[in-house]
Amino acid sequence: MKNVALFGAGRIGRIHGANVAALPGVALKYVCDPVADAAREVAGMLGAQVSTPDAVFADPSIDVVVIGSPTDTHSDLINRAAASRKHIFCEKPVDLSVPRAQACADAVRAAGVACMIGFQRRFDPTFSAAKDRLMRGDIGAPEMLVVTSRDPGAPPAHYLKGSGGIFRDMLIHDFDIFRWILCTDEGDEAATLYATGSVLVDPEIAKVPDIDSSVVTIRTRKGRLCQINTSRRAAYGYDQRFEVLGSGGMIQCGNHRPTEVVLSDGTGVQADKPEHFFLQRYRDAYRLELVHFFERLQDGGPFRTTIDDGVAAQKLADAAAQSLESGAVVRL
Amino acid sequence: MKNVALFGAGRIGRIHGANVAALPGVALKYVCDPVADAAREVAGMLGAQVSTPDAVFADPSIDVVVIGSPTDTHSDLINRAAASRKHIFCEKPVDLSVPRAQACADAVRAAGVACMIGFQRRFDPTFSAAKDRLMRGDIGAPEMLVVTSRDPGAPPAHYLKGSGGIFRDMLIHDFDIFRWILCTDEGDEAATLYATGSVLVDPEIAKVPDIDSSVVTIRTRKGRLCQINTSRRAAYGYDQRFEVLGSGGMIQCGNHRPTEVVLSDGTGVQADKPEHFFLQRYRDAYRLELVHFFERLQDGGPFRTTIDDGVAAQKLADAAAQSLESGAVVRL
Amino acid sequence: MKNVALFGAGRIGRIHGANVAALPGVALKYVCDPVADAAREVAGMLGAQVSTPDAVFADPSIDVVVIGSPTDTHSDLINRAAASRKHIFCEKPVDLSVPRAQACADAVRAAGVACMIGFQRRFDPTFSAAKDRLMRGDIGAPEMLVVTSRDPGAPPAHYLKGSGGIFRDMLIHDFDIFRWILCTDEGDEAATLYATGSVLVDPEIAKVPDIDSSVVTIRTRKGRLCQINTSRRAAYGYDQRFEVLGSGGMIQCGNHRPTEVVLSDGTGVQADKPEHFFLQRYRDAYRLELVHFFERLQDGGPFRTTIDDGVAAQKLADAAAQSLESGAVVRL
Amino acid sequence: MKNVALFGAGRIGRIHGANVAALPGVALKYVCDPVADAAREVAGMLGAQVSTPDAVFADPSIDVVVIGSPTDTHSDLINRAAASRKHIFCEKPVDLSVPRAQACADAVRAAGVACMIGFQRRFDPTFSAAKDRLMRGDIGAPEMLVVTSRDPGAPPAHYLKGSGGIFRDMLIHDFDIFRWILCTDEGDEAATLYATGSVLVDPEIAKVPDIDSSVVTIRTRKGRLCQINTSRRAAYGYDQRFEVLGSGGMIQCGNHRPTEVVLSDGTGVQADKPEHFFLQRYRDAYRLELVHFFERLQDGGPFRTTIDDGVAAQKLADAAAQSLESGAVVRL
Repeated sequence: MKNVALFGAGRIGRIHGANVAALPGVALKYVCDPVADAAREVAGMLGAQVSTPDAVFADPSIDVVVIGSPTDTHSDLINRAAASRKHIFCEKPVDLSVPRAQACADAVRAAGVACMIGFQRRFDPTFSAAKDRLMRGDIGAPEMLVVTSRDPGAPPAHYLKGSGGIFRDMLIHDFDIFRWILCTDEGDEAATLYATGSVLVDPEIAKVPDIDSSVVTIRTRKGRLCQINTSRRAAYGYDQRFEVLGSGGMIQCGNHRPTEVVLSDGTGVQADKPEHFFLQRYRDAYRLELVHFFERLQDGGPFRTTIDDGVAAQKLADAAAQSLESGAVVRL
Repeated sequence: MKNVALFGAGRIGRIHGANVAALPGVALKYVCDPVADAAREVAGMLGAQVSTPDAVFADPSIDVVVIGSPTDTHSDLINRAAASRKHIFCEKPVDLSVPRAQACADAVRAAGVACMIGFQRRFDPTFSAAKDRLMRGDIGAPEMLVVTSRDPGAPPAHYLKGSGGIFRDMLIHDFDIFRWILCTDEGDEAATLYATGSVLVDPEIAKVPDIDSSVVTIRTRKGRLCQINTSRRAAYGYDQRFEVLGSGGMIQCGNHRPTEVVLSDGTGVQADKPEHFFLQRYRDAYRLELVHFFERLQDGGPFRTTIDDGVAAQKLADAAAQSLESGAVVRL
Repeated sequence: MKNVALFGAGRIGRIHGANVAALPGVALKYVCDPVADAAREVAGMLGAQVSTPDAVFADPSIDVVVIGSPTDTHSDLINRAAASRKHIFCEKPVDLSVPRAQACADAVRAAGVACMIGFQRRFDPTFSAAKDRLMRGDIGAPEMLVVTSRDPGAPPAHYLKGSGGIFRDMLIHDFDIFRWILCTDEGDEAATLYATGSVLVDPEIAKVPDIDSSVVTIRTRKGRLCQINTSRRAAYGYDQRFEVLGSGGMIQCGNHRPTEVVLSDGTGVQADKPEHFFLQRYRDAYRLELVHFFERLQDGGPFRTTIDDGVAAQKLADAAAQSLESGAVVRL
Repeated sequence: MKNVALFGAGRIGRIHGANVAALPGVALKYVCDPVADAAREVAGMLGAQVSTPDAVFADPSIDVVVIGSPTDTHSDLINRAAASRKHIFCEKPVDLSVPRAQACADAVRAAGVACMIGFQRRFDPTFSAAKDRLMRGDIGAPEMLVVTSRDPGAPPAHYLKGSGGIFRDMLIHDFDIFRWILCTDEGDEAATLYATGSVLVDPEIAKVPDIDSSVVTIRTRKGRLCQINTSRRAAYGYDQRFEVLGSGGMIQCGNHRPTEVVLSDGTGVQADKPEHFFLQRYRDAYRLELVHFFERLQDGGPFRTTIDDGVAAQKLADAAAQSLESGAVVRL
């Protein structure tokens, strides 16, 4: 039996908490959140107790911490967890600062604890089947990747103030997909990156300052090519697709739909919009990443994502921000 | 809090049991199964106790029975539950004999208890969205229904011995879909029915005797038309579709796929096969029908399926068997 | 060089005429139509001369007649063409009367001329690829066929007066598809047929009398099963599909769309309606059947459709009409 | 009646010649090609005479020249046609040199003749329906364009020697699509362009020197964003798609398939590959662009493509080549 403490009783904390609580062989013992009501509510719902970070890190019965608290608390919690030899599942990102993220990675490595980062898209049934088929050679060697990643609507501009910008807040997932899908050869990584973008959705976003529409191009050391296109607003819902061209074919990942109803009438033939947003589209993925995490803790096998993946994606986000600012191609 | 006893710890009993156990405001108290090990295992897994029918029906704390035991036990359990004023959720069919099923319906009505029959397809997200759109008039008045219902593979011939034949065992669901989708006008019901079929999959099935491939045509009193085609074997998986033509358009329900991966290569453009079988395709439906059942118990609203629907579908199955045997059209 | 005379300068005559005129090695010499203006216009457009049946049949330079005139003229023209040893391409049907159609078939056989009937659907790129794949064994032995055949809108009731009824006018094509796709084993043919239907589209059609919505079930001697569903009105356009279930899989033929544009917006994901009607959907098929006809005339190979196919489809239409009238299953 | 002379009796010349010959009100009078046999064959097939450029330009009866000869002859023929006041339809590109192309545009303007460039993709039924729907506001203001443009296989490296490189040879069409779809506001044009690429298909192509896989990013003055991805080899056929994100939704243009057959078997659900290559995919487009050209000549309306479009696309190709060589973003 693994005993777990959860940090964060907000939206994502509740998802992780509920998924942990449903796992066999795992006990959610504590829930910590500075918002006492939220902590109490989640703890009550999931049969856990309210606690504090100090108590959690001092409690030798706790094997694992699950970090779903705000981004700016991640690095501190990771460091403290490593120091107290607890395994870590941490929602992305590690930290908005690459050096701080790197320091966490070093601490984790030194402590010898597991630290998986919540790049849940790698556990999406469609994306993970695509990766499996790529790895078993269904399309030969991958050559090009096109990632489409669009939210159904932009958050209020004030929310974006603390987000770190579109590349760190939103494309961080896409940078991870790029590495997971295109850098499949030993040692292949991004060599050059170019990013540009615009404010096309909401002029308030320009004042943050941030952009709401962006395109990124990455070329790897081996010459593989990746294009990412991202918008804060797709009027038709959450658009999450990628396609890989390989020497022997193409693998495409389509959107998931709520139902398979098709309506034909005088205006056309109409299917459902994609699942509304990430909570719907990635419901299974959020569950499956925690199943995987605890299975790997148990069997000692490799984790599908590590804190090094977190740091690497963060570096690409930084490079994109730098490219946007300078208007120039960044060499990595 | 509703206290529940579950009859049946086999495949379908476990599904219903787990879905009941996960509901808020509902306590699964007892599990009954003549196979003691199965009862113990399921009870243990779901935090319930092993019990017996006699004890269950004598226990005034039990509000609800969920019947997932073999078909030939259904009518007796329904009758005893009605007699002891417990609400009933019963897996389809009510009984292979229409008179016995009708007697259950009468007993239930006399006792004033709720009795919902597990026509889970009415709770499938795709099918239920189709029904909603039909009822809100998206395609005007329904005129024609085409139902395709095919299993991935035939069970062994010996299993079919006690099944009541393809119409009672397999098309019972399709007959319910017919009534649910096409008989939407007050008082409209099947007027004539013609069924024919063949043994095309497995010659052993002829010795049961039964058929493995069937086609049924139903015309309603209002002249609406329905065609059902069914096979025990679809090499590409579980094929569960229907389409309704209305005066203003068509609604089609497609199969569900495990993933949205599409592979393009030198041979074509390939998507996933449908979900493998009913446990996969109707996973959500099995859960949602119990959510609905307990919600309606709570709020007193109408149940989406009743024991009368169970009897009505059974009558159509009987008519189909009679048509097959006589080679003639049956008037209802 | 084959010299051709065309009978009929109406809608279908013009299509066949233009397709003939565009063929290499074929000269459209004469156009005959009792409506002089129509004959003149078509002849002018296609570089031919206006003529009369008497002149055509007396002219030894004419090798081939293409019959695209009204249905009630077909049998007479076929008989005269056979008598004057001219090869025949005749638009379907041979004749609304099976005995007259059979007499034509006898005359054609006795004369030793070719006589192809315009079941153009056998030349539709999608349908003909489906047949090829069936014959090469892609889905093993065929077991079940579901045909969906719906017009975009009903013609005025008065037009239907002379049509011979929905089975002879509209389903004649579907009966041919049934034979072409499901009767692929030597000697297999329809053994029983059941047809029913309703007036659901236009009450005027009841006064013809005729029906506008029909469903037909056919079982072959080998036990293969076919269901056809037909309506005079599909609000979303011309719906022409069929699907064959075989022991190893399924082949589906989808509708053709004018474009591959897909629009995603707040209401859904919308593709084009099917091609509007038969002139659009079967444009290629009309061209390809004449290419085939003249190629076979040249190389002596077997024709994809013969007058015997025309007679056989007519017999099924008669059986369907009889089944509808009697309300009983017809044995063939 | 417009009299036409055709330059070029090779692959593309034959296509244009046959399309011209089939137009009502248009007479193909001459065919010119230094390869005498080819000229003779095409002239014979299309009912024209063999001629020479000198004779054509001296013949006052010729109204229009259609230029389908090799790229390096285009600018000279355009200039001579302008000088002799003949209208011009010229296959793309105008010229591999932007200054020479610009000089042609100046000559054409000075002469007051029409000069349409064969960007046939603008006449593809799918692409042109997409443009229509964009212009009527189906998705609001366009924001992002993703173009996928892949050939089924790379030509031999030696062919590429004279091609001007992948951007001038292949992406020229995509640059035109970018302008047509994304620069729909008065005065909006490309502001910055970044191109990179690799040799991933055939190492011989590196020796040309050229690349076989490329990605291009363009940002317009208004901040609209475009990504183009191109490969010389898609194992699944000719891949020609684009999608536009707008403020109110998305328009996608899918590939065309030879048939609508779908095969479901134990391995999946498989549709046809896209049409094999440009001669198949753009068959209709090649025909429709000439219909449009002669209609506009007749009615005096604006041409869908002009020589200025040809020059503008060429400038983008030059910028892409410069970006690839320098590894830097190019400002336009």
